[in-house]
Parts: sequence; C-alpha cells; structure tokens
Amino acid sequence: MTKRELKLGAFLLHNGHHVAAWRHPQADTGADPLRLYQHLAKTAERACFDAVFFADSVALTSGVGGLEPLTLLSAIAAVTDRIGLIGTATTTYNEPYHVARKFASLDRISRGRAGWNLVTSDNAAEAANFGRTEHVGHAERYERAKEFHQVVQGLWDSWEDDAILNDKQNAIQFDPQKLHTLQHHGKHFSVAGPLNVSRSPQGKPITVQAGGSETGKNLAAETADVVFTAHPTLASAQAFYQDLKARVEKAGRHRDDLKIMPGLFPVVAKTQEEAQRKFQLLQDLVTPKDGITLLGRMIGNFDLTPYPVDEPLPELPLTDNGQQSRQKLLTQLAQGENLTIRELYLRIAGGRGHFTLIGTPEHIADQIQLWFENDAADGFNIMSPYLPGGLEDFTELVVPELQRRGLFRTSYAGTTLREHLGLAFPKNRYAK
Amino acid sequence: MTKRELKLGAFLLHNGHHVAAWRHPQADTGADPLRLYQHLAKTAERACFDAVFFADSVALTSGVGGLEPLTLLSAIAAVTDRIGLIGTATTTYNEPYHVARKFASLDRISRGRAGWNLVTSDNAAEAANFGRTEHVGHAERYERAKEFHQVVQGLWDSWEDDAILNDKQNAIQFDPQKLHTLQHHGKHFSVAGPLNVSRSPQGKPITVQAGGSETGKNLAAETADVVFTAHPTLASAQAFYQDLKARVEKAGRHRDDLKIMPGLFPVVAKTQEEAQRKFQLLQDLVTPKDGITLLGRMIGNFDLTPYPVDEPLPELPLTDNGQQSRQKLLTQLAQGENLTIRELYLRIAGGRGHFTLIGTPEHIADQIQLWFENDAADGFNIMSPYLPGGLEDFTELVVPELQRRGLFRTSYAGTTLREHLGLAFPKNRYAK
Ligand SMILES: Cc1cc2nc3c(=O)[nH]c(=O)nc-3n(C[C@H](O)[C@H](O)[C@H](O)COP(=O)(O)O)c2cc1C
Ligand SMILES: Cc1cc2nc3c(=O)[nH]c(=O)nc-3n(C[C@H](O)[C@H](O)[C@H](O)COP(=O)(O)O)c2cc1C
Repeated sequence: MTKRELKLGAFLLHNGHHVAAWRHPQADTGADPLRLYQHLAKTAERACFDAVFFADSVALTSGVGGLEPLTLLSAIAAVTDRIGLIGTATTTYNEPYHVARKFASLDRISRGRAGWNLVTSDNAAEAANFGRTEHVGHAERYERAKEFHQVVQGLWDSWEDDAILNDKQNAIQFDPQKLHTLQHHGKHFSVAGPLNVSRSPQGKPITVQAGGSETGKNLAAETADVVFTAHPTLASAQAFYQDLKARVEKAGRHRDDLKIMPGLFPVVAKTQEEAQRKFQLLQDLVTPKDGITLLGRMIGNFDLTPYPVDEPLPELPLTDNGQQSRQKLLTQLAQGENLTIRELYLRIAGGRGHFTLIGTPEHIADQIQLWFENDAADGFNIMSPYLPGGLEDFTELVVPELQRRGLFRTSYAGTTLREHLGLAFPKNRYAK
Repeated sequence: MTKRELKLGAFLLHNGHHVAAWRHPQADTGADPLRLYQHLAKTAERACFDAVFFADSVALTSGVGGLEPLTLLSAIAAVTDRIGLIGTATTTYNEPYHVARKFASLDRISRGRAGWNLVTSDNAAEAANFGRTEHVGHAERYERAKEFHQVVQGLWDSWEDDAILNDKQNAIQFDPQKLHTLQHHGKHFSVAGPLNVSRSPQGKPITVQAGGSETGKNLAAETADVVFTAHPTLASAQAFYQDLKARVEKAGRHRDDLKIMPGLFPVVAKTQEEAQRKFQLLQDLVTPKDGITLLGRMIGNFDLTPYPVDEPLPELPLTDNGQQSRQKLLTQLAQGENLTIRELYLRIAGGRGHFTLIGTPEHIADQIQLWFENDAADGFNIMSPYLPGGLEDFTELVVPELQRRGLFRTSYAGTTLREHLGLAFPKNRYAK
C-alpha cells in the first residue's frame, strides 16, 4: 500500500467564511466574481489541493447571493488543469436527469474532475421557490435523496466505457449493444434514460455528502465517496469518523472507499500574536445585526432581534427542523460559560461550529497532523476567513509545512479528481 | 438612425448540421468536445459574430449526445471576450427558478453575453425522463411557457441596478429597498423569489424563441428579443417576417425590438464546382439508415424502415404532434417531383428545411444581402455542414465579402450581446 496522503479541499463561500468577511479591508467583494474565483482556483491548484468546493442554496440566504455552482465550475474548468471541481446540487428541488447530465457534462468539460455534493436542502426558504408552501420533511427528503442518487448513478452507466466507436469508414458511430436505457420506475421518480451525455472520464463523477443524522450517515456509508462534516473538537471528529467508517464496512465497502473531510477555519500568520490580531480584525467588524442573524439561523431559525444583545441568551423552544443537535450545542455553550448573545455570536462568527485554528503554520500543521493520524480525518475542507487573502495565507504558509512533513503531495500524480482521492475507477454495471 | 447591420449567429450542432457530418474525413468527432467548441467560438469571435447558439434536448435524440449547453457556454465564456452565448432551455421540463438563476449566473460570468433560447420541447421522448408517460400537449406547453417566461423575467428584476453597495465602512452590503421578492402565484408556478444572483450586466439576458404556430408567434411577438426560424425560400421567409413584425407592433413594441434570424446552411468554396463537390462528398456519406431515421423524424415521427428506399414515399396519415406544416411540405415536395425515399432524404440531409446555399462567397453574400434588404431576415443563424471546417470556410470566405459590402461589422462596437444586437438596456420594473 502507498503511504496515506492528506486530502485538501478549498471551500469557497462568497466573500469568505467569517460573517464579516466582506468588510475586511483586503476582501474582494466580487464585482467581477469570475476573476476572483478563477484566481482562487488557480491558487489552490498551485498548492496541489484535491478540489475546490462550492456549497449552494436555491434561495437567497444572507448577503447578496453568488453564482450558480455548475456554471461557475465550468468557467473554472476552462482555466485549470488538475484541481477537482465539486459543486452542490440538492435532491429536494431538482430532477435527477438534469443533475446527472450537468455533472456528466462538467466531467467531460474538465476531463475528469467533477464532483457532486448531494444535499437535502437545509434552507427551508427553498420550498417557496418551487411551488411549495412548506419545506419537504426530513424523512421524505432523505427517501427522495436515496432514490435520486440511484437514478443518477444509473444514468451515468447509460454508455459503457467503450461504446463510442466513431468508425467513419463503416459508418458506425457507437455500439448499440453498449448503450442502455434505465427504465427506472420508483416512488419519487420515473426516468427512462439513456443519458444524452456519453460516459464521462471518471466513469462517474465523485459523490460528496454532508448529513449528520442516522439516515444521513447511512446513506453516506452506502453511497458517498467523500463526506464533508463539521466538528469543533478532536473528540467529536473521532467519534464521527469511527462511527461512519464502521457503517461503511457494514455496508460491504472498504473503509478507505469513503474519505472524511471536516471543515477547518484557519487564521494563520508567522506569529501567534499576529494571527490573533488578524482574527480580531474580523471579529471587530461583526455588526450586531449580522451576528444576530447568523446566530438565529444556526440555532434553529429564531428571530433574536427582540432580545438585548448584551444579556444572556433567552430560553428557546426546541426546534423541529432537523437542526436540534446544533441548537443543543450552542445553548449548552452559552449556559455553561454564561455567554451573552453578543459573546455567543462572536464564538461562531468565524468557524460556524467547524474546527477553528488560529496560529502559526507549525501550530496549524501540528493540529492537522494530529487529527489525520488519530482517526479523526482523511483531510480537510479549508474554510478561508476572507477571500482571496485567507486562502493565499493557507497555501503560502501552511501547505509548504504539510509538504515538508510528507503529509501532502508536492505535485499531482494523476489527472482526475478520482485519482487525487485515491478512489478506484467504477465498473459499469452492464460491462461484460 | 445608424445603418442597419446584419446579425450572425453560429449554430453549433454536435458534429455539424449535415446528417453525415461526423463521417466527413476532416470532421472532429468530439473526443475532446471542449477544445472543439472553444476553437469554434474563438473562430466565430474573430469574425465578429453576434453569438454562438446551442440547441438542446433533455433526451437522447440521435447520435451520441453532446454536452449540456449551460456548462458548455460557461467554459466558452472563460476563453472569449465579446461573442454572445445563447443556450437552449425548455420550459416544459424545467423549473423557472433554476433557469433564471443559471442564465443570470452565465450573464455575470460572461460579463453580459448570455442569451436564453426559450423552447417548448419538440422532442416527445423528453417526457419519459421526467416522470411522465406522455409528452405535454402543444397548448399546455405554450401556456406553461408563457407563465414560465413571466416568472423568469420577474426573478431577473429581483435586484435593481444599483442595489449592491458594498459599503464596508458603514456595513451596508446592499440597499434593502432595492431588493424585491416576486411572490408569483399562477396556474403552473408559485415562486416567491428573490433570485439569489444579483442583477446581471445586461439587465436581463437576451431571450430567443423559435416557434412557428399562432401561439408561438404571438408569444414571440410579445416577449422575444430574437426569433430563430426555418425557411427554405425567400417568399416563405418574407411572409413570416412581415407577419411576425406586424404582431410585434400590435403587441405595442417597435418592430426593431425583435430580430428575425432564419437558419442558413452554407456550403462555400472558391468556385461553384468546388462547392458542389464539397456538398456531394457529404451526400455520398449518408447511409440509408441515417437518411430514413432523419426523414421519419422530420415527417412526423414515422418509422419508414419497412418501405423500399428506392420507391416513392408511401401515403402517410396526418401527424398530430404539432409538425403538420413540415409533413405537408415534405409530402408535397415528394409528390410534386415524384421523389423516392432516398431522393427525399437527400434533399433534407443538409439544411433540414432551412435556407440552403451552395456556391462561391459572392453568390452566398448576394443571397444574404437579398434576404436582408428585402424584409426576409435581420440576420442568419449559420448552420455549418461539418465542424470545424464548415464554420472556418464561412468565416474566411463569406464574412470578408459581407464586410466589404458594408453589411457586417469589422469589429465589435459594444461588449454585451444586447449591444451587439442593438437592443436597449431594460428598465427594472421597480426602478423609480
Ligand atoms: C457540513 C455540511 C454542509 C452542508 N452543505 C449544504 C449545502 O451546501 N446546501 C444545502 O442545501 N444543504 C447543505 N447541508 C445540509 C444537509 O444536506 C442536510 O440537509 C442537513 O444536514 C440535514 O440532514 P442531517 O440531519 O442528516 O444532517 C450541509 C450539511 C452539513 C452538515
Ligand atoms: C428553428 C427551430 C428551432 C428549435 N429548437 C429547439 C430546441 O433546440 N429544443 C427544443 O426542445 N425545441 C426546439 N424547437 C421547438 C419549439 O420550441 C416548439 O416546441 C415547436 O416548434 C412547436 O411549436 P410551434 O408549433 O409553435 O412551432 C425549435 C423550433 C424551431 C422552429
């Protein structure tokens, strides 16, 4: 077996992950978003990252919105060669034929670098943009997601690897024996197929997931190539890691077939003091309005504006929208340390519940190594505080330190995202 | 008034428009489709074309399929600067929020070059990929299209032109007075909005349409910026042109607000004989199987395989799938000239019912000028026989001749597709 190698994704959120990112004096606020994101992707590619990663919502959440991930990723594909391109598409307000087709198309355009982050919509506001008065419930969302995933996988097998012949002489464009209709007829979807995009360079694009419930973890264990997850502490990441890897094995797969990549919010500088100053600069830019909005959303969609910001967090009823665990975590944190609303929102203004590291490149590399070597992570999804500076800091300061330690590649060995992740080429279900 | 200027689109269909295009010895069969299409778009841009244009279907029609237009156009946007980028998205098997968002995103990525070809799905096979046992009927398709268009236009007005402030100092990212929800509640769609992509550089992407029925023409007259249409003769193009322009005026718009661009299938060479040889080369590559499939599809989805290919066309029942006019045209042609099935399919193997010109650059420019100056066309959508050679021939031989005659631009005056087409920037409905 070759040496186990750390995986790194660049999670690019609008202006950066800190809630005040856009106010940072050096933040690019995205007047020309394509130029910004192409620069970021090239920066991550020079540092040999496995992929860039875009979250998504089909409704306006906060701020001014962004670009649609698939169109954006194609424009990035055109100016990069190696880095993987992971975009989010919800199974709740989409049709599997469209999703299968778009990612297959991106995979061909990027010559094998596409990844689909399969989500079940954590933003209830999406419902009203798709003819519904209420968000689809948690159980139904996952039932639909599971069938959606099956259909997409089936469509990606429409063409066998060697179906296309383009034999001009004998007028045979493809082998009809190697083109397959799907004829899926299930509870949520009926999809005939075949897909009208031929077999993509990775066989199938990579599938990423990010759900924490029992149902979410089981679906990931059965089907995902990568899991993106949020853990503030080593202990919680280890518990999740061991739990999920056991489920992967129970589902009949090898534990290495699924890579677990927690989010990491890093603030890095040459000295610890400078890193703290960098972080404080952003913290000082958080307005009560933005802080309260963020906290209200993360604690279960509550309007906290009526409460005094410098008083303790009020008692809140238990939310029923599938975010109970995060609500409990935040409530306990506030009660345990007797935090005011302001103090509490400042705790989450940066990392939003993800692993947070503020310090020197050595300190950050130490912690990454600790998690990587102690069954807590196969890699990390880097959530830069602001853009583009936050990502540049990480690639210039932390990546070389990880490379010196032999934890991270210094050049790409393969050309596809699948190869970067060390995952096998999938056999077509119809192949003889 | 400035001089009226010809508009040119490059209609890029998989391997080219001739049914045997892929078998042409110099045809690129698309092993690396991105490289091919980027080359074609750059070729068209050097010749100052208004736009590249991609048709679409969400089902496999013939051949081996292609790429999904929106992802493809984004990857083209990244390597071009001026040329417009028109992609097709059906209103029949899509949701307006997704479509509005993707084209707004493409418009931002391309800095104002996006166009949406709004179609109502002429391919009945799409239904089975979206949970339906039957294709949606013609009347309902158009009713849905009309409401779909309204919703998309409304979402594109979500943000007023000057809504985004990015005032870091005062922590004001946007003016909430200038962000608008839509709250559309209609027969086919309920969409709250706002769109989560901010106002695009063209105000709104360009809308293209291509329907020939009464309903189709009325919808275009009320809403389209460009109409793509198929006419084999000057007389039929003139009748269509005058009819549609009159409808535009009846709808309260100026006749120049809608540009009519028929398809043009050109085979060009330095001499007439060479052009004929070029055409014959492709004609000789048509297999009976491909010819019969094409003819069967165009004459109303009939299976013609049981009939002898060198006997006259059999009597066929009248089709009811909205293609009656084309069926009549082809049947009359066959009867009038007593054509066999083979002779008939060879008549449509290239231009498929569109304006077809085989000859010298001067001959082709003469005909273009004739149509342009005699109320038959505002421009043409160039349907190259095969790719990339067919488009290269047109840009190298015909475009300079059009430029010499002062009919076509020698450099771009503006930067957006809207400017190329000479269309006004749309006022936001909420602007005071
Ligand atoms: C780390 C993480 C990232 C997520 N990213 C998205 C996203 O980009 N878009 C989205 O609609 N949902 C996103 N989700 C929501 C999940 O898809 C899912 O709907 C939610 O977590 C509830 O499922 P669960 O109870 O299994 O966690 C994310 C969830 C997690 C934990
Ligand atoms: C020139 C032309 C191009 C068209 N392109 C497409 C296309 O790319 N995809 C599609 O689904 N339908 C396409 N259509 C079909 C139309 O959107 C419409 O469904 C069909 O023409 C029937 O409407 P009608 O009776 O108004 O012509 C096209 C039609 C015409 C005339």
